[in-house]
Amino acid sequence: MTLFSPEQLATLESQSIELPSWAFGNSGTRFRVFGTEGTPRDVFEKVADAAEVNRLTGLAPSVALHIPWDKIDDYAALRRHAEDLGVALGTVNSNTFQDEDYKFGALTHEDDRIRNKAIAHHLECIDVMDATGSRDLKIWLAEGSNYPGQTDMRSRQDRLNDSLRQIYARLGENQRLVLEYKFFEPSFYHTDVPDWGTSYAQVATLGDRAMVCLDTGHHAPGTNIEFIVMQLLRLGKLGSFDFNSRFYADDDLIVGAADPFQLFRILVEVIRGGGLNNPDVAFMLDQCHNVEAKIPGQIRSVLNVQEMTARALLIDHDALSAAQRANDVLGAQAVFMDAFYTDVRPALAEWRESRGLPADPMAAYAASDYQATIEAQRVGGTQAGWGA
Amino acid sequence: MTLFSPEQLATLESQSIELPSWAFGNSGTRFRVFGTEGTPRDVFEKVADAAEVNRLTGLAPSVALHIPWDKIDDYAALRRHAEDLGVALGTVNSNTFQDEDYKFGALTHEDDRIRNKAIAHHLECIDVMDATGSRDLKIWLAEGSNYPGQTDMRSRQDRLNDSLRQIYARLGENQRLVLEYKFFEPSFYHTDVPDWGTSYAQVATLGDRAMVCLDTGHHAPGTNIEFIVMQLLRLGKLGSFDFNSRFYADDDLIVGAADPFQLFRILVEVIRGGGLNNPDVAFMLDQCHNVEAKIPGQIRSVLNVQEMTARALLIDHDALSAAQRANDVLGAQAVFMDAFYTDVRPALAEWRESRGLPADPMAAYAASDYQATIEAQRVGGTQAGWGA
Amino acid sequence: MTLFSPEQLATLESQSIELPSWAFGNSGTRFRVFGTEGTPRDVFEKVADAAEVNRLTGLAPSVALHIPWDKIDDYAALRRHAEDLGVALGTVNSNTFQDEDYKFGALTHEDDRIRNKAIAHHLECIDVMDATGSRDLKIWLAEGSNYPGQTDMRSRQDRLNDSLRQIYARLGENQRLVLEYKFFEPSFYHTDVPDWGTSYAQVATLGDRAMVCLDTGHHAPGTNIEFIVMQLLRLGKLGSFDFNSRFYADDDLIVGAADPFQLFRILVEVIRGGGLNNPDVAFMLDQCHNVEAKIPGQIRSVLNVQEMTARALLIDHDALSAAQRANDVLGAQAVFMDAFYTDVRPALAEWRESRGLPADPMAAYAASDYQATIEAQRVGGTQAGWGA
Amino acid sequence: MTLFSPEQLATLESQSIELPSWAFGNSGTRFRVFGTEGTPRDVFEKVADAAEVNRLTGLAPSVALHIPWDKIDDYAALRRHAEDLGVALGTVNSNTFQDEDYKFGALTHEDDRIRNKAIAHHLECIDVMDATGSRDLKIWLAEGSNYPGQTDMRSRQDRLNDSLRQIYARLGENQRLVLEYKFFEPSFYHTDVPDWGTSYAQVATLGDRAMVCLDTGHHAPGTNIEFIVMQLLRLGKLGSFDFNSRFYADDDLIVGAADPFQLFRILVEVIRGGGLNNPDVAFMLDQCHNVEAKIPGQIRSVLNVQEMTARALLIDHDALSAAQRANDVLGAQAVFMDAFYTDVRPALAEWRESRGLPADPMAAYAASDYQATIEAQRVGGTQAGWGA
Repeated sequence: MTLFSPEQLATLESQSIELPSWAFGNSGTRFRVFGTEGTPRDVFEKVADAAEVNRLTGLAPSVALHIPWDKIDDYAALRRHAEDLGVALGTVNSNTFQDEDYKFGALTHEDDRIRNKAIAHHLECIDVMDATGSRDLKIWLAEGSNYPGQTDMRSRQDRLNDSLRQIYARLGENQRLVLEYKFFEPSFYHTDVPDWGTSYAQVATLGDRAMVCLDTGHHAPGTNIEFIVMQLLRLGKLGSFDFNSRFYADDDLIVGAADPFQLFRILVEVIRGGGLNNPDVAFMLDQCHNVEAKIPGQIRSVLNVQEMTARALLIDHDALSAAQRANDVLGAQAVFMDAFYTDVRPALAEWRESRGLPADPMAAYAASDYQATIEAQRVGGTQAGWGA
Repeated sequence: MTLFSPEQLATLESQSIELPSWAFGNSGTRFRVFGTEGTPRDVFEKVADAAEVNRLTGLAPSVALHIPWDKIDDYAALRRHAEDLGVALGTVNSNTFQDEDYKFGALTHEDDRIRNKAIAHHLECIDVMDATGSRDLKIWLAEGSNYPGQTDMRSRQDRLNDSLRQIYARLGENQRLVLEYKFFEPSFYHTDVPDWGTSYAQVATLGDRAMVCLDTGHHAPGTNIEFIVMQLLRLGKLGSFDFNSRFYADDDLIVGAADPFQLFRILVEVIRGGGLNNPDVAFMLDQCHNVEAKIPGQIRSVLNVQEMTARALLIDHDALSAAQRANDVLGAQAVFMDAFYTDVRPALAEWRESRGLPADPMAAYAASDYQATIEAQRVGGTQAGWGA
Repeated sequence: MTLFSPEQLATLESQSIELPSWAFGNSGTRFRVFGTEGTPRDVFEKVADAAEVNRLTGLAPSVALHIPWDKIDDYAALRRHAEDLGVALGTVNSNTFQDEDYKFGALTHEDDRIRNKAIAHHLECIDVMDATGSRDLKIWLAEGSNYPGQTDMRSRQDRLNDSLRQIYARLGENQRLVLEYKFFEPSFYHTDVPDWGTSYAQVATLGDRAMVCLDTGHHAPGTNIEFIVMQLLRLGKLGSFDFNSRFYADDDLIVGAADPFQLFRILVEVIRGGGLNNPDVAFMLDQCHNVEAKIPGQIRSVLNVQEMTARALLIDHDALSAAQRANDVLGAQAVFMDAFYTDVRPALAEWRESRGLPADPMAAYAASDYQATIEAQRVGGTQAGWGA
Repeated sequence: MTLFSPEQLATLESQSIELPSWAFGNSGTRFRVFGTEGTPRDVFEKVADAAEVNRLTGLAPSVALHIPWDKIDDYAALRRHAEDLGVALGTVNSNTFQDEDYKFGALTHEDDRIRNKAIAHHLECIDVMDATGSRDLKIWLAEGSNYPGQTDMRSRQDRLNDSLRQIYARLGENQRLVLEYKFFEPSFYHTDVPDWGTSYAQVATLGDRAMVCLDTGHHAPGTNIEFIVMQLLRLGKLGSFDFNSRFYADDDLIVGAADPFQLFRILVEVIRGGGLNNPDVAFMLDQCHNVEAKIPGQIRSVLNVQEMTARALLIDHDALSAAQRANDVLGAQAVFMDAFYTDVRPALAEWRESRGLPADPMAAYAASDYQATIEAQRVGGTQAGWGA
């Protein structure tokens, strides 16, 4: 416990990481989606699983929804269900990539009928937000093209801007729009919002409540992601994170699993730029537990973010600044790495216990009967997944 | 016609490119598989579509099968069906990535029951080859892991070798095994056969009829693929190509669409190394027509290979060698690029007509009623796809 | 000649590509800089070589300077020298990467003394511009860090902005500042202007005469560069190109040599966005002729740009738009590729002759005695290179 | 101390990492080589600096030489100098990239005169090895080409093989040849030994004492390097490591600095495959301290390897195997990561002291007067660097 100051512990205590409802459903690759016992059949069961993650970690007080995967008739009932379980409903994610009409675009489509349909879908998402009390509408666009010449990229940009303006205009005064960018996939030649610059240029035309969403898996190989974190915080436009990790493409692995040091560097810049526990910057997971257990996968993920935040908080900023000012490269690096290499796990475990949480949430879950119960109960029906 | 010498035309006339049956079925990404009218419901219809490509181009006299997607009771009937349509049945592709048992491996699996099942699947594929008259068994392994530590990579290599030996032992004396490598996907941390070196080291232990399959989309960013073509031909181990193209990952776009000059360089090395019209080196497509029409997509693809082969044949080798020997960098490059920039299309169109083929196979297909017919006929049933 | 319309020929006739003075000096890698006979010893000889490229191609009417490599006492004399040879002095490039003081930064340096020195260097460059009649000040910053933690990226951004404002304020009303971005090198962890988004965000704060410079070799692997061209033109902030090509990193190869189709796509977007023969968008080469002859290397380069521009101009836009609107993927691609595969070289050769230029500028140079003359004359002295 | 078992400590005690003499000289990029006070002027001073690293860490008992950079008349004197300082002379590195003759190749050159000269250089290196008592001849080839068509890759492979055979034949019975591969640079289109497969295929034809050298910075983006470590150990052909780290290309940063977790994974596979403290597998650094202090840079580097080896040794292999066998993905990953996240530094510091070494070698160097002494003494002369 003496590892952390009271201020650092207060910071850690305030940390919250939103869970995506779809992380509890099945996911996979174009080659195969493997099912698992106990997988939720509907959004109520997804929220229950998310609440279990929060119960054991104290880190995940809200759940993001995906429309239409989580579309239901009575959002008020879902909201009560969530609140009963100690969590809130969070970001609403739109989906414009699974309707036949959207094969060649949605918010960028040349055909007004289709584009208006996609806009209407987003307005419907805002209706959901009104019902769930959600603040953020997150827009990830799968749109693009597979072949050079297939489409006119320039006019798509203009139509995108028009579509976003219409959606933005519908937002409530306490609601926001966050626009996610992605390097590639499912389009393989061009993507309409491929980089932070495009997302930034687009949202900058909308207004103060339009922000950029940074998914840590959506960059070109070698991209210095923490630089982008720094820049977007500096520009006042970092609206939210989608955390995951990757070795190759958008692998959607557990955050911190592929390159822990990268996660450390990202969190250092978050703290440096005032983005931690800043209501303007939402922390969220976006992952696919293709081969690992889903609920423990989410527990592991939020713990990874917590532990790495704790390491980042340990940087001795006075020593670091002094070494930086002196251009003492190795000295500065030593201060930086000292925080990374510090084993924060025992202190965090102790601190969790002091707050009435399990010292080891992974072990606590394994020792509980939650998994056995859901495997016994969730028989029949259709397991939730991306295709649903 | 005077563009090409009689020898060059003879070379072009002998060229054949095998079509994958699955190119005529639906494909997509993890986000969505879009269907299209007229899509085959079974392997007979796939073969019919492939035969149509061959009829219009004279370039595609065989069709590769994928087991179990193309599994049927009576392969003799399928063989007659194909022969009636003027094509042969070609390479048989195994599938060890869609059975629940294979979630954590197949030919590499630690559990003997599962590994033996995977071996048995390959022996069954050889049975199919016996019935179809196919020469090549192509093995692409989706196996690997998503997280460091998840599995022991070393012992998997050893088990893979043992599995391959058992499969190889079952081959007929005129049959071959070709082992494909892939950089990543569907595994996101390690792949059991990730690079040509691994495939080469594995097949080298099996025997003369075990070769490497090079899929042009299965490399790390920036890889000089034509170097690998050169090296495998030099080592006598280039067994076959899976042609496609890519901008990012294994995008499976139409061959030559993403980087035509790369295709040119590959074909130059094929010719340089004696790999063209060499029975030891099979040319095959492996593509996904996610957004474009499938039959025209295949026509376009084989024409791309033909046109680029024609360009590669036009290199003035005497001039090139002289410039190379003189270290005249720009002179050598000029000879090389002159062939690439020559417009071979008019001469090829004229030559096609002289052989009783349509000058423009794409236009001929559009003008035919084939597409309208299959769209009218192929109603009901389940469209073929990867999941079938 | 009938290949091109009069309008297209007029467009081609207006095309100009600025040559970098340093392309005529020696360059190399960290491993070795090889020298060549006839290499200029000073900027007057560089300008003479550049003028020779222009004399043979009619494409390169101006020469960019690099300060201090091209620093002299009497720029008026240099200007007269250039004009006598039929060329103008163009963009002035600053250099903040070779002074000992700049080891850890220049325009971003924490030490005001060093930062002010770097600002003063740019003001001196503007003095040069006043003397040479140059319009553009191009700033490429080598600044960054090699190790995480070495420096504070955020405050460097702020200091960079302040420095740029001071420089911008000194510009004459007909002068511009173009800020180049680069993915990495010579810094290996972070670069202060690593991507177009950062350059855009920085210059957007300065004013209308601050623009982004896009070097085609300064992107992450797989980046869709033509998308950025499209976006910057759309945003009105594409100030200039540094053309070259690459297989791996910032290889600085001859433009169009590594991926001709990429150059085609870029030029298509330039034309689409109104960037061709638009005074706001400067075309320039930035290459390293490490192993090939330098003057022919530059001739080859401007011809590559010209030929590819000619191909891009041949796109049948009506047919392309119709196919795009119909979501006819293969039809649109066919129109696009038809232009790329058209052999424009004979028509361009004929057209060159009609304008009094050599049909084949490469052959004309080889047949001239220019190279023999400079090899004989340029004996003694120090060959020009990056090291000044 | 109780963190490690006696066996683990014995393993750590046996660890040795060879230092490259050139790490103590100046290095840089093509843009600039910055000098530093106290830089050695000759190989005797380099060896002295290396010995200082060993004195403080006990980890670096040998120094690799680079010919001709370290070429002298009396190697016996150098050997005595080294032994007096407690270190040995190690691997001899050849250089075929700085002579004018080698502009277009050396061991692959088409001109027999040049190729024989390059072979003779390697024979001379073996003479040096005889004099220094070195075991390993390390060959890294800068050879390749910058433009497609520039050269014939295939015949270069054949000539390379012939050259290597001639060199191999000259080796003493206790000497080895290790062939390094590299993805790119200084060649930008093709490299004659670009990947482990090529190096493996080449050395496999030579004999048992020809092995592959794996430089951790010489791979394509995203390459799973530990897989290659595993495979080469499995094939019995991993001869040596060149350790460094990278974010982008061959950045040559301090080992473990860019991706500590990757270094961990590599060392896990080294241990798994029996490569640790195995005389067949040499550990060496190959780095460039462009901006950081050189001697502390080397101290930091060997400590990074030691610390990460210590973490890798802590893996609970029984628990890991059990989880792997059960396909408990998260369980296996937890065991793996537990070792990585354990803070081994205090135990290592204590253990160092118990062996008469400084607990903190970095602090010990800073507290010593070594740096001040060499800065005072090494005045005049020419600082060593790559060009020397």
